Amino acid sequence: MTEPLDVAKLQRRLAEFAAARNWQPYHTPKNLAAALSVEASELVEIFQWLTPEESARVMDNPDTAHRVTDEVADVLAYLLQLCEVLGIDPLAALDDKIDRNERRFPAP
Amino acid sequence: MTEPLDVAKLQRRLAEFAAARNWQPYHTPKNLAAALSVEASELVEIFQWLTPEESARVMDNPDTAHRVTDEVADVLAYLLQLCEVLGIDPLAALDDKIDRNERRFPAP
Amino acid sequence: MTEPLDVAKLQRRLAEFAAARNWQPYHTPKNLAAALSVEASELVEIFQWLTPEESARVMDNPDTAHRVTDEVADVLAYLLQLCEVLGIDPLAALDDKIDRNERRFPAP
Amino acid sequence: MTEPLDVAKLQRRLAEFAAARNWQPYHTPKNLAAALSVEASELVEIFQWLTPEESARVMDNPDTAHRVTDEVADVLAYLLQLCEVLGIDPLAALDDKIDRNERRFPAP
Repeated sequence: MTEPLDVAKLQRRLAEFAAARNWQPYHTPKNLAAALSVEASELVEIFQWLTPEESARVMDNPDTAHRVTDEVADVLAYLLQLCEVLGIDPLAALDDKIDRNERRFPAP
Repeated sequence: MTEPLDVAKLQRRLAEFAAARNWQPYHTPKNLAAALSVEASELVEIFQWLTPEESARVMDNPDTAHRVTDEVADVLAYLLQLCEVLGIDPLAALDDKIDRNERRFPAP
Repeated sequence: MTEPLDVAKLQRRLAEFAAARNWQPYHTPKNLAAALSVEASELVEIFQWLTPEESARVMDNPDTAHRVTDEVADVLAYLLQLCEVLGIDPLAALDDKIDRNERRFPAP
Repeated sequence: MTEPLDVAKLQRRLAEFAAARNWQPYHTPKNLAAALSVEASELVEIFQWLTPEESARVMDNPDTAHRVTDEVADVLAYLLQLCEVLGIDPLAALDDKIDRNERRFPAP
């Protein structure tokens, strides 16, 4: 039986993966932020010429679904590695942000 | 006592937040991917003129630390909302991707 | 009477502007490429929640028209500065690229 | 003898290229802005793991030089097409912006 997936476990796998390949010197916060934005753009690229309606159906095509899932993984990988090197807890950061947004944009 | 934070709980909060403001029509996969990339660029903007060494110290300044944490939250918010509308499990996607990368880039 | 605007003249103005402020050390190709992508995302931000039809009418609103024009200027500024530091002629690069695309995607 | 290259001539070539392939329906301002940002990120990708010093030498390697030049062309292509559909004169926009920046950031 395997333990359930969580963010800390994935961060550990990513850190071991990078360490085993001596990639840490490349993983400055500046470089990781750039890599994150590059992966986010690869996600945009999949959607760039689609109508809103077509974009809602991207998962119907198995090849496109695989490509989207793969890019989501890449974005998350760099986001978690950036958080790791900066000491940020991403889930707590988002929870706080939603709290602030609830005060900033009160529901009608 | 509050339940521990996890991705599913944050996705629920984000979905309720958007629903209460009638924002779902804007949340096409195409628009969410664009918004994700815009937030990733706001993160890059913080680092764009810094040297690698300066970028490693961004959390030393409380204002910059707050700004970085805030942008991390925004990136994660759009990533989780995109996954929600597309039915992608982001943690499983990343776990699979690390498996594939381990085969693709064997450690030396 | 002023000479007509051209790319070389604008590159000269940009180089003088940066030199007068001692900004050249920041203008590595890596940083200029990042700044270019950040400005391109600020352009995307204007359009991110618009329908295709709304996006076609952005110039009808004077404030939005000004904002779009301003971001176009920022993108071009960093593109021309990047070309300057790398010794690339942007117009010749594009002319060559269209030649190659005409061979690669023959018109029906 | 060929006429010298200028922005208007390149915009004409790009418009004819798109029209011959019936691509105009895809060329909404929103889609062109997204495509521009995707190409800008492909430029960032070339530099993302380089040190500032390595980034200053990218044109020394003919393959990398070609790749950088190609991405510069792609960024300019989408910028000029976006300007064309929006009726923006990119050189005048940048000239105005430099005027404004000179007032906003007076040289020391």
